[in-house]
Amino acid sequence: MTGRTARRRITRITLDAGQVSDRADLLAGEEPLGIRIGGQAVTLTMRTPGDDIDLAAGFLLAEGIVSAPGEIASIRICSGEQCGHAEHEGAADEDGARESIGNIADVTLRDGADWQAPRRNFLATSACGVCGKASIADLRTASRYDLRADQARVSAATVAELPGQLRDAQRVFDRTGGLHAAGLFGADGRLLVIREDVGRHNAVDKVLGWALRAGRVPLSGCVLLVSGRASFELVQKAVVGGIPVLAAVSAPSSLAADLAADAGLTLIGFLRGGSMNVYAHPYRIVAS
Amino acid sequence: MTGRTARRRITRITLDAGQVSDRADLLAGEEPLGIRIGGQAVTLTMRTPGDDIDLAAGFLLAEGIVSAPGEIASIRICSGEQCGHAEHEGAADEDGARESIGNIADVTLRDGADWQAPRRNFLATSACGVCGKASIADLRTASRYDLRADQARVSAATVAELPGQLRDAQRVFDRTGGLHAAGLFGADGRLLVIREDVGRHNAVDKVLGWALRAGRVPLSGCVLLVSGRASFELVQKAVVGGIPVLAAVSAPSSLAADLAADAGLTLIGFLRGGSMNVYAHPYRIVAS
Repeated sequence: MTGRTARRRITRITLDAGQVSDRADLLAGEEPLGIRIGGQAVTLTMRTPGDDIDLAAGFLLAEGIVSAPGEIASIRICSGEQCGHAEHEGAADEDGARESIGNIADVTLRDGADWQAPRRNFLATSACGVCGKASIADLRTASRYDLRADQARVSAATVAELPGQLRDAQRVFDRTGGLHAAGLFGADGRLLVIREDVGRHNAVDKVLGWALRAGRVPLSGCVLLVSGRASFELVQKAVVGGIPVLAAVSAPSSLAADLAADAGLTLIGFLRGGSMNVYAHPYRIVAS
Repeated sequence: MTGRTARRRITRITLDAGQVSDRADLLAGEEPLGIRIGGQAVTLTMRTPGDDIDLAAGFLLAEGIVSAPGEIASIRICSGEQCGHAEHEGAADEDGARESIGNIADVTLRDGADWQAPRRNFLATSACGVCGKASIADLRTASRYDLRADQARVSAATVAELPGQLRDAQRVFDRTGGLHAAGLFGADGRLLVIREDVGRHNAVDKVLGWALRAGRVPLSGCVLLVSGRASFELVQKAVVGGIPVLAAVSAPSSLAADLAADAGLTLIGFLRGGSMNVYAHPYRIVAS
């Protein structure tokens, strides 16, 4: 299977120079990951391999299936149909990073965890966050955390420096140009974790899963930065993770702004070049 | 409900100038669209309202539910639970464009059309194309068209001009910065149709649906250009629509390149500034 990156032969055409050349190029890896709970297939997401346990854990959190790491007995990454006895191991990819070795995340919940056979069906893709909702009325996942109670304040100058930090920390993006990044920061601008994926939702789920497994949820006082746009679904994930500030390098949608306003989330968009637009709850951003 | 765009109050912070100002801003509209077939909910996608009939028709094509417009008896856009007697009508949004007035697309297939109650479950989001696949082995939708038989040739100079055409034709993107665009062109570079959406998959489905309803599928000899990256799912949609050339302004993923190579699709990425990378079947691109 493919790793975080994959090498392919390409043809490069440059009009002005009149050049056509064949060469090797590095592409962002994309592979399906199936997530099972108790042996039952519940979702399928197209993701960049790597941090798959975080991705599965983040999915469980974002979909409201678990709220604490203790509710998860195990997550094993394995291959094919015979996952029963596989163990999570690693293999080095072209970056030398440890990679998962399968495309199935096999989740076992603790006895008594509130998981029902799919009344809701989960089918995720690389930009999926509303997956598993049986009706529009059920779109919004209930959050356990009251973001309005979060007293975090972040200076605008600190926020303005986050995109540069994210870019510097990206291990793959600059090499392939094909990956979204999600970075979690403290209110002081300190980078806590960064995750990358061809799907921005997966990148955020990987951050959430990392936080869940580290016992850091709710992520009070934190800022989540995403490299692309902010959709409704990303706002929902931030809210479910208890994150009070979501910043995007690019534009938010109308529904993202509306949900942020409703949920008490500070939503920042067009964060670039020392300026930003704040679409909801700007009081957390201290300009001076 | 929201239209293609929505006006919101925002706080603009500019660090260098030390300015904080409140003002109105135009955001890309995002709303859920539920698609029903014969009264049964089969998918839910987060989309930008507008061209919803095209979106629903494109979904039916991309998922292999229909292959010809005659298999669709009707698609009605309506609101709420009582769709039975609603008719598709329009209402002007802030752009003055005709808008759909509901968030349900109610599809009726012709008698005898091969639609089964969901053995496969469809749940789509704004970047969903692998929705409805019960297993990884079933990821690839079988295509009725043999792209290798498509004799189309396109000059590299023509391809290089497409992004400029797409930008010029975008009605909303420049105003909100939040929409993906998909444009369909003839091999001579003539723009056939453009569609926009917060989700690039929806933009492509809207193009496919337009083509299906116009009796233009398979789209032999055409070039599809997308404003962002090219994922596996976009390649799959192009293949199912019989489109021989897919070009993306940004990076493709490894799986996109692999599927394109396998399916006989010419895949172009990083199409910008008079140069491009061709990831599969470059013979269709004539450099001189």
